[in-house]
This record gives sequence, C-alpha cells and structure tokens, in this order.
Amino acid sequence: MRLGLAEIDGVRALVALRDGVVVRPGGGLPADPLAILIDLSLRAKASAAIASAPAVDPASMRLLPPLAEFGKIICVGLNYADHAAESPYDRPKFPVFFLRVDTGIIGPNDPIIRPLISDHLDFEAELAVVLGSGGRRIAEEQALGHVAAYTVFNDGSIRDWQFKGPQWTLGKNFDNTAPIGPFLVSSDAVPTDGKGLRITTRLNDEIVQDANTNDLLFPIPELIARVSEAMTLKPGDIIVTGTPAGVGFARKPPLFMKAGDVCEVEVEGIGKLVNPIVDEAAS
Amino acid sequence: MRLGLAEIDGVRALVALRDGVVVRPGGGLPADPLAILIDLSLRAKASAAIASAPAVDPASMRLLPPLAEFGKIICVGLNYADHAAESPYDRPKFPVFFLRVDTGIIGPNDPIIRPLISDHLDFEAELAVVLGSGGRRIAEEQALGHVAAYTVFNDGSIRDWQFKGPQWTLGKNFDNTAPIGPFLVSSDAVPTDGKGLRITTRLNDEIVQDANTNDLLFPIPELIARVSEAMTLKPGDIIVTGTPAGVGFARKPPLFMKAGDVCEVEVEGIGKLVNPIVDEAAS
Repeated sequence: MRLGLAEIDGVRALVALRDGVVVRPGGGLPADPLAILIDLSLRAKASAAIASAPAVDPASMRLLPPLAEFGKIICVGLNYADHAAESPYDRPKFPVFFLRVDTGIIGPNDPIIRPLISDHLDFEAELAVVLGSGGRRIAEEQALGHVAAYTVFNDGSIRDWQFKGPQWTLGKNFDNTAPIGPFLVSSDAVPTDGKGLRITTRLNDEIVQDANTNDLLFPIPELIARVSEAMTLKPGDIIVTGTPAGVGFARKPPLFMKAGDVCEVEVEGIGKLVNPIVDEAAS
Repeated sequence: MRLGLAEIDGVRALVALRDGVVVRPGGGLPADPLAILIDLSLRAKASAAIASAPAVDPASMRLLPPLAEFGKIICVGLNYADHAAESPYDRPKFPVFFLRVDTGIIGPNDPIIRPLISDHLDFEAELAVVLGSGGRRIAEEQALGHVAAYTVFNDGSIRDWQFKGPQWTLGKNFDNTAPIGPFLVSSDAVPTDGKGLRITTRLNDEIVQDANTNDLLFPIPELIARVSEAMTLKPGDIIVTGTPAGVGFARKPPLFMKAGDVCEVEVEGIGKLVNPIVDEAAS
C-alpha cells in the first residue's frame, strides 16, 4: 500500500498510489497515512477504498509530506563506505546519528530553497524508515517488526554551515531543504526489508549518486537497535539511513545546487522525489 | 511571574511560585505556562489568580517539566571558555549547536536514570531560554523580544556514548537524563536578560560547577540570531545556553554520577533543580 497526503482544493486529503496513478480513497479514512498503516481495521478499509477510488487530476493537487505529523527525525551519517571515504571523516565503527527538525521538511515537488547566506547547497539521496511502533532497547532481531513503511528522503545540506564547527546541526537544518515522500510504502510491499534497492540522485538529468542499499555499513535493524539503546522510539519517528558517494561537496570541483536546477532522488521500488531549486527571496 | 506544572491528585495542573511557596491558581487558566505568558489577557488573569491562590501541600504534588509540550530543544556546546578549554575541542569561533529530543526530558525531583550500558553519566548546569514568539533571521537587536521566559536545565550526558563518533547525538539523548524547571520565570522578572547570574552544580552538596552567565562566549541574542539564520523558530522552542567548567568527564580522576547521588543545578534568581540518581532497573 502506498499512502500519501495532498492538498486538494485547499484541504489536506489522503491519497494513494494505485498502479502509478494518484487516487483519492473515500470511506471517511483519516488524513493520516501512518495512522492507517498501523491500525489493522483502517488498513483493511483503506485497501478496499483504494480499489475503487477515483483518480485525482494532478493539476488540481499538490503532494505534501506523507506524514500528518513528525516525531523524531533521526539521520545517519557516513553510512556507506564510499561516502565515508569521500568525506573528511573516518569510516565509522559505530553508527553516526544526527537529528533534523521538522521546520526543514518539504513535500515532493516543493522547491528546495538555497539560502542567501550560502551557495553550498548539496543533495543526499537516502532511504527513510518510518516506525509504526516504538520501544526502548529493541533487539536487532525484532527491529524490522517495528517498521511500518519506507519512503525517500533528500537530506539537503548547507555544507559551509555544516562544517563551521564540530556538530553538523545548523547545516542540516535549514528551512526548506529536506524533501520527503512522495508516499509511505507499507513494509509488506517491500519484501526485501529495504535491502537490495538501487538508490540514485539525478541533478538536471545527470546521475550524480548511484548505489544500492545493500551497501549500508550499519543495516536498518542495527540502526534501530543502537538508537533505542539510548532513547525511546515512538510511532512516527523516522530513521534516515544515510547517503552513498557522489555528493557535491566531495567532488572536484565541487558541485552545488543552484536556482533552476532540478534534483531527483529515487529509491528503487519506493519512489522518486523531484524538487526544483529556488533562491531564497531577498527580503 | 513563575509558572509551572504539577501532577496533583493524578491531574496535570498549573502551579505558580509566590514568595517561594507553590500555589495553585484558580480561574480556569489553561495548564500551559507558556500559553499564559504569551497572551496578555491570560497573563493578567494569572497575575490576579496567583495573588489569591491557595498553597499546595508539597506532599500531594509532583512537579512536572514546566512546558505543556516541547518544540525544538536546541542546545549549545562549548559556550563557556573554561569549559571549552577542559574539553577535547577548540574554543569555538561560531556557536556549536546540537539537538535534544523530548524523550530525554524529566521534571524537577524526578530521578536521572543511569543506563545499565554506561557508567559515564555526567551533569551540566545550564540556563535555558524559552521562546514566546518565533521567526526566521531574527536580528540580535530584536532577539530578546522573542524570549518569554528563562528556566534551568541539566544537560545530563552519557559521555562514552557522546564520544563514540563525531556527533554527540546519542550521548545527549538518553531517556530520563534532562531535568528542566522547576518554573518558567517570565522575562520581565529577569531584568538582566539572563546576564550576570551565578550558575552552579552541587553533587552531594559539594560545588562542582560555579560560574556566571556573563561568561557565555556567545550571548543569548547572538544564539537566537545564529540559529534563526538556518531554521524558523517557534513559540515553545528552547535554547539551552551551554555549561561552564567542572563537568565530571574533564576531571582527574573523572567524577561520574551514580545511584544514590543527588545533583543540584541552580541558576541565581531562576531556580534550582534537584534530582537523585537512580540506576536503570535490570529488565
């Protein structure tokens, strides 16, 4: 099941992807994809409603981030060996986590905004895992049972701000730099549990990142286990699993995104995010 | 005005501190200290209600964190020169920010829990700033106008986890390690705008941190300005301004907290947090 949210006639509405077509299920379902995925009876209702749902005219809607509200956004750094090698950091012996806040989140097709104070706007294709149930000290063997869905994330980064000091926080948290979506893909529709999926970024139609989620240094169950050794996870928390090699700041010469560019981030079988780059308006 | 929250007879209730005594204002005020502080008419109502409010029997209540809900918890690292000097890091040329999540937050008097997987539990006395209005690109000159209240924060840290890799995230985000409160002190009751306040930690009655908020390397207006260059701030977001020298991991020999200890963190004129240390129960 592929569920998302869209603004249709000014209202936030539940949408689904059926055979590649965006449809609007009826039946009084909540406009909350995750709430549906974690409730067996809502899920059955949604399944039936999607089968007979009318297509939505793409011109009449704007896709939104596919979560009605955001919990913790836990990102993983340096989680592909080739990306760690191109970075200024050592290959990690333990997963490297950082946090994003929801003020940076945008939807599919929304513009990524390059702030006036930097021209170091970079892309990062990532597979994101959405938790359907929480817990603390979740064992690796149990971890996949907590995953409700997968989606795609572009961990847009302002590199000069990321590296102003020892913590990456500001450079990872600019407004309008983190597209997510387009849909939550229920875990039962991802038989590989997120493994073996090609992950790519295309900047203006040119492939700039091209890898496979098999190459995660710390696989999804281990990430969930390690985070939950420290903190209680909750439904709706997201783990963003890291980006492979090819990011702009590590290239010679560097390749940063600028107004007029289009950035496409895709994870095989999960979805594709397409976002134009726009300069922040001078105020 | 000093407003907080307490559990009284199993219900979350608004409380206030009047001449050092916890009182429970009537008058149908919301159990949300910040909502009161940012609304002029609720504030006037609260002021009148506090004057005639009955005292609360301390034995019948448990103080809670003084915010009804948490927004972003933006912490500042290495923001006192003497603490930067005792750390493995250089004195920062730009403020160092990291994020905490609300699953780590506890109230005044609640136990700080030392996780079974570490014996490197450390204290950090900090002055916290609670925003009453948000914004982006807030100028330093305007920044103090966005501050609704001040409170006290103990940025409890699991040092071995904090330093497992280049980002501090996990060690700063263990459950039950971040006491906040006891009250929100409205900014009009802090005529110095947070400056010139003695800040101390006492571990088992012995002073282990003792400094003054005048020594912040990056003062409060600059912190607000820098963060809001990246991200939109909102009412309820907190900026935790950093800790001075004396933390346990930098001592020779190191001084970590253990079951049976009592940690008291105090900021002059703002309040004192007193929390016992308890070991995580083996499950």
